[in-house]
Amino acid sequence: MTDLVTFGETMLRLSPPDGERLETAHDLEFRAAGAESNVAVAAARLGADAAWTSKLPDSPLGRRVVSGLRRHDVTTDVVWSDEGRQGTYYLEYGGQPRGTNVIYDREGAAVTTAETDELPVDRIRQAEAFHTSGITPALSSTLESTTADLLAAASEAGTATSFDVNYRSKLWEPAEARETMEALFPDVDLLMVAQRDARNVLGREGDAREIAAGLAEEFGFETVIVTRGEDGALARHAGETHERPAIETDTLDPIGTGDAFLGAFLARRLAGDDVARALEYGSATAALKRTIPGDVAVVSRAEVEAVLAEEVGDISR
Amino acid sequence: MTDLVTFGETMLRLSPPDGERLETAHDLEFRAAGAESNVAVAAARLGADAAWTSKLPDSPLGRRVVSGLRRHDVTTDVVWSDEGRQGTYYLEYGGQPRGTNVIYDREGAAVTTAETDELPVDRIRQAEAFHTSGITPALSSTLESTTADLLAAASEAGTATSFDVNYRSKLWEPAEARETMEALFPDVDLLMVAQRDARNVLGREGDAREIAAGLAEEFGFETVIVTRGEDGALARHAGETHERPAIETDTLDPIGTGDAFLGAFLARRLAGDDVARALEYGSATAALKRTIPGDVAVVSRAEVEAVLAEEVGDISR
Amino acid sequence: MTDLVTFGETMLRLSPPDGERLETAHDLEFRAAGAESNVAVAAARLGADAAWTSKLPDSPLGRRVVSGLRRHDVTTDVVWSDEGRQGTYYLEYGGQPRGTNVIYDREGAAVTTAETDELPVDRIRQAEAFHTSGITPALSSTLESTTADLLAAASEAGTATSFDVNYRSKLWEPAEARETMEALFPDVDLLMVAQRDARNVLGREGDAREIAAGLAEEFGFETVIVTRGEDGALARHAGETHERPAIETDTLDPIGTGDAFLGAFLARRLAGDDVARALEYGSATAALKRTIPGDVAVVSRAEVEAVLAEEVGDISR
Amino acid sequence: MTDLVTFGETMLRLSPPDGERLETAHDLEFRAAGAESNVAVAAARLGADAAWTSKLPDSPLGRRVVSGLRRHDVTTDVVWSDEGRQGTYYLEYGGQPRGTNVIYDREGAAVTTAETDELPVDRIRQAEAFHTSGITPALSSTLESTTADLLAAASEAGTATSFDVNYRSKLWEPAEARETMEALFPDVDLLMVAQRDARNVLGREGDAREIAAGLAEEFGFETVIVTRGEDGALARHAGETHERPAIETDTLDPIGTGDAFLGAFLARRLAGDDVARALEYGSATAALKRTIPGDVAVVSRAEVEAVLAEEVGDISR
Amino acid sequence: MTDLVTFGETMLRLSPPDGERLETAHDLEFRAAGAESNVAVAAARLGADAAWTSKLPDSPLGRRVVSGLRRHDVTTDVVWSDEGRQGTYYLEYGGQPRGTNVIYDREGAAVTTAETDELPVDRIRQAEAFHTSGITPALSSTLESTTADLLAAASEAGTATSFDVNYRSKLWEPAEARETMEALFPDVDLLMVAQRDARNVLGREGDAREIAAGLAEEFGFETVIVTRGEDGALARHAGETHERPAIETDTLDPIGTGDAFLGAFLARRLAGDDVARALEYGSATAALKRTIPGDVAVVSRAEVEAVLAEEVGDISR
Amino acid sequence: MTDLVTFGETMLRLSPPDGERLETAHDLEFRAAGAESNVAVAAARLGADAAWTSKLPDSPLGRRVVSGLRRHDVTTDVVWSDEGRQGTYYLEYGGQPRGTNVIYDREGAAVTTAETDELPVDRIRQAEAFHTSGITPALSSTLESTTADLLAAASEAGTATSFDVNYRSKLWEPAEARETMEALFPDVDLLMVAQRDARNVLGREGDAREIAAGLAEEFGFETVIVTRGEDGALARHAGETHERPAIETDTLDPIGTGDAFLGAFLARRLAGDDVARALEYGSATAALKRTIPGDVAVVSRAEVEAVLAEEVGDISR
Repeated sequence: MTDLVTFGETMLRLSPPDGERLETAHDLEFRAAGAESNVAVAAARLGADAAWTSKLPDSPLGRRVVSGLRRHDVTTDVVWSDEGRQGTYYLEYGGQPRGTNVIYDREGAAVTTAETDELPVDRIRQAEAFHTSGITPALSSTLESTTADLLAAASEAGTATSFDVNYRSKLWEPAEARETMEALFPDVDLLMVAQRDARNVLGREGDAREIAAGLAEEFGFETVIVTRGEDGALARHAGETHERPAIETDTLDPIGTGDAFLGAFLARRLAGDDVARALEYGSATAALKRTIPGDVAVVSRAEVEAVLAEEVGDISR
Repeated sequence: MTDLVTFGETMLRLSPPDGERLETAHDLEFRAAGAESNVAVAAARLGADAAWTSKLPDSPLGRRVVSGLRRHDVTTDVVWSDEGRQGTYYLEYGGQPRGTNVIYDREGAAVTTAETDELPVDRIRQAEAFHTSGITPALSSTLESTTADLLAAASEAGTATSFDVNYRSKLWEPAEARETMEALFPDVDLLMVAQRDARNVLGREGDAREIAAGLAEEFGFETVIVTRGEDGALARHAGETHERPAIETDTLDPIGTGDAFLGAFLARRLAGDDVARALEYGSATAALKRTIPGDVAVVSRAEVEAVLAEEVGDISR
Repeated sequence: MTDLVTFGETMLRLSPPDGERLETAHDLEFRAAGAESNVAVAAARLGADAAWTSKLPDSPLGRRVVSGLRRHDVTTDVVWSDEGRQGTYYLEYGGQPRGTNVIYDREGAAVTTAETDELPVDRIRQAEAFHTSGITPALSSTLESTTADLLAAASEAGTATSFDVNYRSKLWEPAEARETMEALFPDVDLLMVAQRDARNVLGREGDAREIAAGLAEEFGFETVIVTRGEDGALARHAGETHERPAIETDTLDPIGTGDAFLGAFLARRLAGDDVARALEYGSATAALKRTIPGDVAVVSRAEVEAVLAEEVGDISR
Repeated sequence: MTDLVTFGETMLRLSPPDGERLETAHDLEFRAAGAESNVAVAAARLGADAAWTSKLPDSPLGRRVVSGLRRHDVTTDVVWSDEGRQGTYYLEYGGQPRGTNVIYDREGAAVTTAETDELPVDRIRQAEAFHTSGITPALSSTLESTTADLLAAASEAGTATSFDVNYRSKLWEPAEARETMEALFPDVDLLMVAQRDARNVLGREGDAREIAAGLAEEFGFETVIVTRGEDGALARHAGETHERPAIETDTLDPIGTGDAFLGAFLARRLAGDDVARALEYGSATAALKRTIPGDVAVVSRAEVEAVLAEEVGDISR
Repeated sequence: MTDLVTFGETMLRLSPPDGERLETAHDLEFRAAGAESNVAVAAARLGADAAWTSKLPDSPLGRRVVSGLRRHDVTTDVVWSDEGRQGTYYLEYGGQPRGTNVIYDREGAAVTTAETDELPVDRIRQAEAFHTSGITPALSSTLESTTADLLAAASEAGTATSFDVNYRSKLWEPAEARETMEALFPDVDLLMVAQRDARNVLGREGDAREIAAGLAEEFGFETVIVTRGEDGALARHAGETHERPAIETDTLDPIGTGDAFLGAFLARRLAGDDVARALEYGSATAALKRTIPGDVAVVSRAEVEAVLAEEVGDISR
Repeated sequence: MTDLVTFGETMLRLSPPDGERLETAHDLEFRAAGAESNVAVAAARLGADAAWTSKLPDSPLGRRVVSGLRRHDVTTDVVWSDEGRQGTYYLEYGGQPRGTNVIYDREGAAVTTAETDELPVDRIRQAEAFHTSGITPALSSTLESTTADLLAAASEAGTATSFDVNYRSKLWEPAEARETMEALFPDVDLLMVAQRDARNVLGREGDAREIAAGLAEEFGFETVIVTRGEDGALARHAGETHERPAIETDTLDPIGTGDAFLGAFLARRLAGDDVARALEYGSATAALKRTIPGDVAVVSRAEVEAVLAEEVGDISR
């Protein structure tokens, strides 16, 4: 039995090195990257038996995605398709005031046609937990209903469900996102949301604590995590709220911070840790992720625990 | 007045270096590449005033294409679009028996929606020559009719028209290609075709000389060029046939050989050279191209003439 | 008619990556770079029809320069020479206290022999604006008189003239620079000068505001821009002074900041913006430049305007 | 149930790119590589359910090895050790007459202490096939007896056993190798040996056909494969001999050719193909391997079959 | 006569670029690095006639080490061995909270068998100064006695001796280190120790000043240097204490800071500077080192003096 | 006492990797390279105590040259100059028919002002052998007379003198070269000349054997070596002629082949080998050089002897 199954699109990420612009770049770094598979990688590295499921084109590009996940010990359960593209995204890192820019090239991806009955629903039903994010239903109307089906199937089978709002302004408008996601919430046990998205997309008011309480009350989530960037994160569970400040980091690559957080949190919850302890693991894994290039948290459990124990010095030799 | 205008799709080409496979690659070389813009670059480098027209997404990716052509002194006359993707292709070089593999990712490209009335038809009408290839009408039904319109407009305005069959088996079937292209041939003055495509797609029989004669007769082309890879090329013009053996090369990158050939041929014809002399330039430019990485012939006219004069030694110092 | 013509030396810049020292470097980054062509690139990217003129050796090195400018849509109008070198410079980036070190290798460059009558003076006469800098007359006595001739020709033809003091201590002494430049000032409409150079080279006293007022009064400049690094810039025009604080940046490569500033300023002035608005564009373009490797501001007008609108977040996706 | 389990040392391979010498190299390519894991990768890619077992240091270097195998869909079943090093080897490619040079740095590797009872013997007993090579017993006396134990356990359990002589002159002398290996042969079902090793190490005489027959007769091997480099390979099975010429290749990296051959052969035998057909797959996979950098055959079954069908052209587009 | 001879292990350092993790790295930077040879390089660059002696395997790897030192003008006097490995270390740079991690792979290195009578003891006897560090006796019992012999031989011959405590927690425990080092102290003239090591390893109490005074008194050192990282360094000599704050740096690579400090200090002392002046050189060289990738201080004396004169600006051009 | 001193210009070589053209290159490989220092490196690697003397700019570029030679154990005895440039050359590798192109950028190099009395003439007088080439007197009239002085001084002091014709068509005309070189020949003991240069520059006729005999007779050379590229080399000494076919090579970089040949020949002659044996070493070292990137023969004596013993296989492991 798998501990955790995640579902969503994994893209190939193309990024010019060293701050170069796409317009003048001559080489691009090439990595696999996707919110839900990032969660699976972080969970696997923290000790969970994690799988990722999706639909990919039967091509070297699709195989590149699978290869990029398996190396992190994530089981891949993929529908191979003769139709549809491999989604990609271009990432231009830029210091301030330029900022980092993401250019999606994911239209027509094979995953956008993924229907419930071709996916490994039984694997999800038998897993302990199932995770997806607000990106998935934004990708196509097919995926909107597939996401609903999978959450419902998991919920019905007693598989704990996790959902990260992950609002992407380049994919849809706040109102549409809210409507779609709120329709899914009845089948969600754990909700993670950035404070900014809670306000702008879900229309919540108040501070993080009030947002968490309000969401828990309105939708009956078992757990609500509200992330606040440099101000840390907060988890509400069983009526109690646990806060955790962010760990200061030298940030090399911020992409995937939230996914690392959630993957570690889920792995530790599945391993039996309480919410407060899982929050600590999430926070430390997220901090380590920011020092690592690429979308995924290439960390070991021992490293995460060294951060928690504050045993990390400048140079270990 | 521009000497030569070419029309077609230019993609971004992503290629793992050093024989690495896409599945394990961590970096990709990144270049602009497209049959018709390759022709424009070769023509510009051989002295023509060359332009390329197309439709591109208004994004850093579209600008990357334009930047990659302008640096070779090609004028770009582009319709910037808010809709549609930037086409890309992945290129895996492999020695024998692996072979070199092209993976197109060009569906939904902005150019596939290019309609006649948004393109610079007047620029084509005022040019001395207009060039496109069999790839363009294969990309969409819109492009099929746009290609027909542009060839007709050029033909009517007295602009010489050039067409390279350039059959791509990953885009369409031979029968469909033949039907589409033969409908365009009445407006084509110069036809270039690989001997293999003449047989498999256009259904011609006999040797290159017979193919050229037959095509010239059936469709009334002013000039027919038949290329035969390592066996060189042949041009039929005004009832005469000129042959030219291929120049032996140390091949580093064969992509774009035919485009380099035709760009140089057209440039020299526009400059007043006769067919036999233009064929020599085409042959030498094609040979140089094969020693250069990327799709385009980064050569100077002096270098081409040194090859023709056989003045090239091992090391020039 | 060209909006802006710039004149000066463009070098090839050779720089070890990743903080490596020249003494142990095994690879060098290779780019085209020159104060006046940097201005042309920034102006072209902000919408001006910009050209650059100079004299280059007829070699792959000279062509490398032209290729590096054309890709940014700058028209190049070059005298190709069989005599003289291609100037280069070596750039070693170093954090504090090492600092960044420039090693010029520009002696004997072809441009140092550029005489007035071989340059496209008519193009300058017909342009709306002409720009050069204090580097140009420092390079040779020939260039000193050519610079004077071109400024005079432009001035006489009613072309607006722009001059950036750009004092280089590795080229000449302050006293010599002052004498040479002051002889040119009568033909200059817009003067840009760093506050430090105004003091050390031009012998001005007081704060930036006083420096601008004093220079405007003494030499009759229509516009004086005084730059103060992290303290921003100030423009005096028509008796009024406009100040603009510098935008905070994560600096990756500071070379070319002033050129980006001035190119954007000129482009917007040519497009009809008033001095205050042009100053804003200059400031935002300069800030973006500092996040980009290389000498030139690879930016779009939309990006500059997003900085002005403070619409830039950490990650745009 | 796993189809194939392989056992042996996997090293990290450090290699200067582009023909550079170690003495002057500034960067090294970094890959996982080992004869028996190479076999597992090739088998997995040809469709087998393949696993690799060994002992590795519990460090980022050991994890690097595992990551490098999992990405090719090989299950890793590893004893993590706090003692012992991660073996490495340095590889200097050189054209003739320099030749390619391997510098082993594998002394004291964790695997050299691997004892039978810490390894997953049950997994081997339950597999359909077990493979190791003559390198393994050469590494330590502990490994010599562990190898004997594992072959005996497999044999006893009815798991088919495969052994590649793989003589390494930098590890031991021919006489010692022969004595050690001949002691293992009674538990080996399939023997693979290079003709040169058959002569120099095993003391066989005659041509490949005679060598195969002699070995089969003397030691009772079910299958004997004799490889002859450019002269192809030969398999003797059930009294019949099947020959297969080598496929001509553009060789980029010859390391791992034999492992690719054997992995594909085993995969196809396990899938039910007869020896002649499996030999074809081995030959085609080996040929493809030689076009790919690194030790492992990054191929798909479809690619191997395209080689067998001679469907491969120069450029597929 | 050589000014300074240093003795110790020099390893090959393998480091993933750009913050990448070893587990996913595909390329490693490759440099020679060792505490005592770092000291020799810094001393040579500051003007001393410096030599390094050690024992290396007779292989391209051993030659790589020698090549990496000679280029910095260090004389190498090496015992070439057919036995023993070349020590290596893997270095993973990580921002906070990850920290930088060193993985030693130096067991069984040839140098661990270096005996006194195979080393160039006469060269040490004839030198003005001899330097080694606490790393050397930690590597093997042979090296423990060889280190003692060499310090004694130097001391007896009137060669000034220098010893840097350089405690490495991955090599030994504090108590063992203290016992071993204190046995060597009677033959040491100059002791350098980090304040943290003075406390944790040598069991000293009090502030740096008290530590220096206490060590000088107890062991009779002529000079004691106590380093305190960002808080600067302090030297006690002839009863006087000289302090020097650390120079603020943009740190690119902190490895080797102390070695650069001591190499420069020794070079200037050998050149006749007093302790206070030598301390300034040490401090400035250490600061420059931190801006330079790799273990060694690739600086010139002129650069060090420019730092001391505070003549360094942002960009020198 | 030094065995061999060589004198000449060493440049920095800038070369685009992977067949890229200078016009589109974004990175350049950076190495030290010069005919006479190449000879010194080959001699040092074959066991001679070799030095190189020249004049260099006192800059990081000059120090880069020295660093690049010292690492190969060549003693450098350099006049550091505040005037004059560091010569560079750009190298574009191209397969046939493009060919490899060298672009010199060496005008105004510091070495062109090197006068006899600033150079270490005593070191040359005390050496066993002195070597320079026909490139040196071609660089300036100062160098023409300095070369003459040094050859005369060596000759007078009994130092054996060696001279490689090394005609460079980009530096001078054949007639001028002949006149200059023939004036130096009376002080030359060993002359090396390519057969092509013997004909085109020195006006010799006949085959290599006749050329060698004629030159030896006319100018009284003790030894004459005539090289014939793929046809091998021939040495005439003491009335006897020794021939040696070229060893077949996979050529990666042909630059420096002749220098490697001569350096090895000189080293073995200085070590007492007879001409026939030294010729063998020269031939094997030249063959190895062609497999190595860069100008210099990074080889060991053992490797050269393995080639001579034909002990080299495909892969040594």
